[in-house]
Amino acid sequence: MAEEVLSWDQLTKMPPAAAEVRASQIETIAKIAHERFSNGTVGRLLQECGGLETAMPSDSFEASLVRVTRRDWERQRRVPTELAGRIAQAQAEGYAIWIEARRDSDFGKFLPALQRNIDLRMEYIDCFEPTESPYDVLIDDFEHGLTASDIKPIFDRLKPEVTRMTRIVVENASMVDDAPIRGHFPKASQEALCDTIAGALGAMPEKWRIDETAHPFQTSFGTSDIRLATRYDESFVSTSLYGTIHEFGHGLYEAQVDERLNRTPLGAGCSMTLHESQSRLWENLVGRSRAFLSFAYPTIRLAFPEALGTVTDDAFYKAVNKMKPSFIRVEADELTYGLHIILRFELELDLIEGRLKAADLPEVWNAKVKEYLGLDVPSDARGVLQDVHWSAGHFGYFPEYLLGSVLSVQIWDKVARDQPDLDEQIAAGEFAPLQNWLKEHIHRFGRTFTPKEMIERAVGGPLDPEPYLRYLTAKVNHLYGGPAA
Amino acid sequence: MAEEVLSWDQLTKMPPAAAEVRASQIETIAKIAHERFSNGTVGRLLQECGGLETAMPSDSFEASLVRVTRRDWERQRRVPTELAGRIAQAQAEGYAIWIEARRDSDFGKFLPALQRNIDLRMEYIDCFEPTESPYDVLIDDFEHGLTASDIKPIFDRLKPEVTRMTRIVVENASMVDDAPIRGHFPKASQEALCDTIAGALGAMPEKWRIDETAHPFQTSFGTSDIRLATRYDESFVSTSLYGTIHEFGHGLYEAQVDERLNRTPLGAGCSMTLHESQSRLWENLVGRSRAFLSFAYPTIRLAFPEALGTVTDDAFYKAVNKMKPSFIRVEADELTYGLHIILRFELELDLIEGRLKAADLPEVWNAKVKEYLGLDVPSDARGVLQDVHWSAGHFGYFPEYLLGSVLSVQIWDKVARDQPDLDEQIAAGEFAPLQNWLKEHIHRFGRTFTPKEMIERAVGGPLDPEPYLRYLTAKVNHLYGGPAA
Repeated sequence: MAEEVLSWDQLTKMPPAAAEVRASQIETIAKIAHERFSNGTVGRLLQECGGLETAMPSDSFEASLVRVTRRDWERQRRVPTELAGRIAQAQAEGYAIWIEARRDSDFGKFLPALQRNIDLRMEYIDCFEPTESPYDVLIDDFEHGLTASDIKPIFDRLKPEVTRMTRIVVENASMVDDAPIRGHFPKASQEALCDTIAGALGAMPEKWRIDETAHPFQTSFGTSDIRLATRYDESFVSTSLYGTIHEFGHGLYEAQVDERLNRTPLGAGCSMTLHESQSRLWENLVGRSRAFLSFAYPTIRLAFPEALGTVTDDAFYKAVNKMKPSFIRVEADELTYGLHIILRFELELDLIEGRLKAADLPEVWNAKVKEYLGLDVPSDARGVLQDVHWSAGHFGYFPEYLLGSVLSVQIWDKVARDQPDLDEQIAAGEFAPLQNWLKEHIHRFGRTFTPKEMIERAVGGPLDPEPYLRYLTAKVNHLYGGPAA
Repeated sequence: MAEEVLSWDQLTKMPPAAAEVRASQIETIAKIAHERFSNGTVGRLLQECGGLETAMPSDSFEASLVRVTRRDWERQRRVPTELAGRIAQAQAEGYAIWIEARRDSDFGKFLPALQRNIDLRMEYIDCFEPTESPYDVLIDDFEHGLTASDIKPIFDRLKPEVTRMTRIVVENASMVDDAPIRGHFPKASQEALCDTIAGALGAMPEKWRIDETAHPFQTSFGTSDIRLATRYDESFVSTSLYGTIHEFGHGLYEAQVDERLNRTPLGAGCSMTLHESQSRLWENLVGRSRAFLSFAYPTIRLAFPEALGTVTDDAFYKAVNKMKPSFIRVEADELTYGLHIILRFELELDLIEGRLKAADLPEVWNAKVKEYLGLDVPSDARGVLQDVHWSAGHFGYFPEYLLGSVLSVQIWDKVARDQPDLDEQIAAGEFAPLQNWLKEHIHRFGRTFTPKEMIERAVGGPLDPEPYLRYLTAKVNHLYGGPAA
C-alpha cells in the first residue's frame, strides 16, 4: 500500500524533477516488501496456520487467508530474488527506452529492450512447472488459473462476429455523428462535472477523490481510500466523463471489499477480468445507456451550455456510442476495442510460443490492423509502439481487458434478471440497488475465491461470449440498423 | 522518505475516512525502518567502514557519513524496540485524546495521557548516559549537542528585554494598525498569489509544489521534491502569505542540500534551530522588510483589488509588522512569539526536572501568560492545550523555535556584511545572491556538521542573542518609536 501511495503521488502530484529519486524510493519499498513476503517467517506462519485451511470452511476468512497467502507465497518464492531484480531493472530501462522510441516512432530503438524483456520472461517461465502453453505462466500473474486454451475459443467466437459488425458500422458510418461531443469543453467545467457524476454514482468525498493524470487509472489504499485519476481533453468530453465512470467501476469494487479483509492478501479485487468487468459495466452498460443519460444528460448539458446547449439527449446518446475503427486501443469504441485486444493476444501467444520474432512485430501488427480494422497504420507510434505494457514485459495482461467486457454483460444480464426494474432505477439516479447486488455477489469477497470460482458464483457459469455478442449485435442494429445488420 | 510521502498525503489529500488504515500503514513503515536501521547489518557496515572516519578529512562525505550514521545508530539502539513501541502508541493515543480535550477545553481529560507521555519520556531518558539535566536527552533528539544550560543564558537575556519591548508596543498600540490585512481575501486569489510569490523567491514548479492543509508545514522527499503546505484564512491574508514564505525558507534549505547526499543520513537540514533560522529569515527578515515589500506589494495589491486597492505600501508594511500580545503561539507576532517559547521552555524544564506536576500546568501556564504577556487566559483551549507537541511527548522541541529566530539575525548580519547591497537586491526581486550565500555557507552541507559546528561555520561564533535584540529594538523603535523606546 505504501508503494501504491508513492506511485499515485508520482502519477498525479509529484514535481517532474523528482522522477529519479522517486524511482529509487519505490524500488526500495518494493524490494523490502518482496524480501519480507518471501522470507522464512511467512513460510513458518503458513505452516503453523495450515490446519485452518482444512478445519475451517473453504470460504471462511481463515481458510481463505491461508490458502491465498500460500499461493502468492509459493509463486513468489519460485522466482529467485536475483531474477526478480533483473526483471525490475529491465522494466525500468524498457520503459525509458519505450518513451523515446514511441516519441521518435522508431521500433528499432525499442527492439533490444523488448527482446530482453521477452528473454527474461522466458527465464521467468522456466521457474514454474511446465504448463500447456508457456504463456499460461504469464497470464497467471494477472488472472490465476486462466490459460491460453480458455481464451482461444472465446476470441475465436468473437473475432468473426466483431469483424462483421465492424464492417456494418463502417458502411453505415453516417448514421451516427459524434460531432456533438467534439467541441470546446472547458477543463474546470469537466472537473466539476466529473465530481458531480462520480458523486451521484456513489463516490463520496469522505472516501474517494479524483485527480488529474496523463493516463487514467484507479488505485486504492484500503476500502476507505479510493483514488480515481482521469485526464481532460478540452476538445472531447468523453475522455474525462467516461474515463471517470470507468475508473469509478474499479474503485467501487475496491471500496466494497469486506473491510475485515483490509491489510490482508485477500483485501483486493479478485483478478483483472473481474476488475475490468466492473469498470466496463459502469462505463458502457450504465454510462452509455439511454437510462443513465436520461438521468445524467441534463446535468452534463448544464455544465457545457455553449457546446451542448442545442444538443438533444438523443444526439448525445448516439455521439457517445459512435463506433469507428481507429488506431489507438485506449481511444477505441466499445465494439472495435475487442479487435485491438484479439490482435495483441495473437501476437503475444506467437511471441511466447516461439512462432514470431520480435523484429517482425511491426510487419505482422500492420497486416492484422489492415485485416481486422481495415486501416493502414501510418507509423509505429500509432501502431506497435502505442502501448506501455511490453516495455515492462507485461505479457498476458491484454486478454483480460476483453474478457472483462465479455463478463460485464453476463453480470449485467444476471442483475437484470434479479432486479427487473434496473433500467428504471438507473433512469431515476438510484444506483444503490445495483451497487448492493455487486457487493453481495462479487465485491465483498475480495480475493477469497479464484477468478473462475468467483465468475461461476456471480453468473452461474464460466466466461461465455454469447451475451456479449447479443448485446453488441443489438446495439449495432439499433444504432446502425438496416438490412446489413 | 516513503513514510514522509504517506504523511504528506495524509495531511493534504487523503479522504478523511482513511485515517485509521493510514495510521496502520505509517506504523508499519516506521517499524520496518526502525528495525532495519537498528539491526546488526548497519553495525557491521559501520565497523567495516569505520576506518574511513579517521582516514578521510572529517568534513569529507565518507567520514561524515560514517560519523553521523553511527551517532544516529547508537542513539536508536539505546532505546529498546519495546519502549519505542509503547512511546509510539502513547503518541497516537495522546494525539486523539488531545484533539478531544482541546475541543472541549478540558485539561483534566488530557492529563492522564500527558502524564503517561511524561513517564515514558523519563524511561526514555534512562536509556542514555546521565546528562547535566535529564531534559538534555530530549533536546538532543531535535538539536544534537544542545543543552538546557546552553539555552538558559540566552533566554535569560531575552526575557526581560522582550517583556520590556512588549510593554512599549502595548502602550503605543495605536501607532500600528493591521486593519488593512483584515478584510476579505478570496481563497483562489490567495492561492494564485502564494504560487506567484513562492515562484518569485525561487520555488520552481519543476521541483516544488504548494498544497492546502490545516496546520502549515514543509516536507521533502529529496532535493528535487519539495512540498509546502499552507492554509487560507479569507479574513486575514498574512496566514497564507507569510505561512508560505516561512515554509519556503524550510524548503529552500532542503532543496539546496548537496544532491550527492540524497538518500543518505546526511541528506537533510542540520537541526531544528538551523531549519527554523531559515524559515524565520525568509518570513521576517526578507518577507516583512521594506525592501521585499517594495518589490512584492504591487503584486499583492493587484491580487486583492477590493481589499487593498486603497492601501498604501507603508500601511501594508506596518500592518504585517503589527505587534500585539495574544494567546496563540502560532498566531503571535515576531516580538511576542519569543515569550510564548520561553514560557514553554520553563514549564518543560520544571516538568522534566521534577519541580512541576503535570496537574499544576494550567495554573502555572496562566500565571506566566499574565506575567509575560499581560493577558488573562480565557480557557485551556486557548492556553495550555493549544499546542500539539506534548500530546506526542515532544518535549525539548519548543526552544529551537526561538533559537532559530535568534540565529536568523546572526546569519542576516553576516550575509549583509558579505553582500552590502542585499537590500537593493531584494528590492529588485533578486534573491539568487542570498540563496547562493545560504547554499554555500549552510545548506549544501546537510547534516555533515553538528549544529554547533554548523552555526560556528556560518556566523563565526555560537548562538548570540545580541543581534536579535538589536534587530527587535530597532524595529520596535521604528514602528512604535517614542520616548519610551
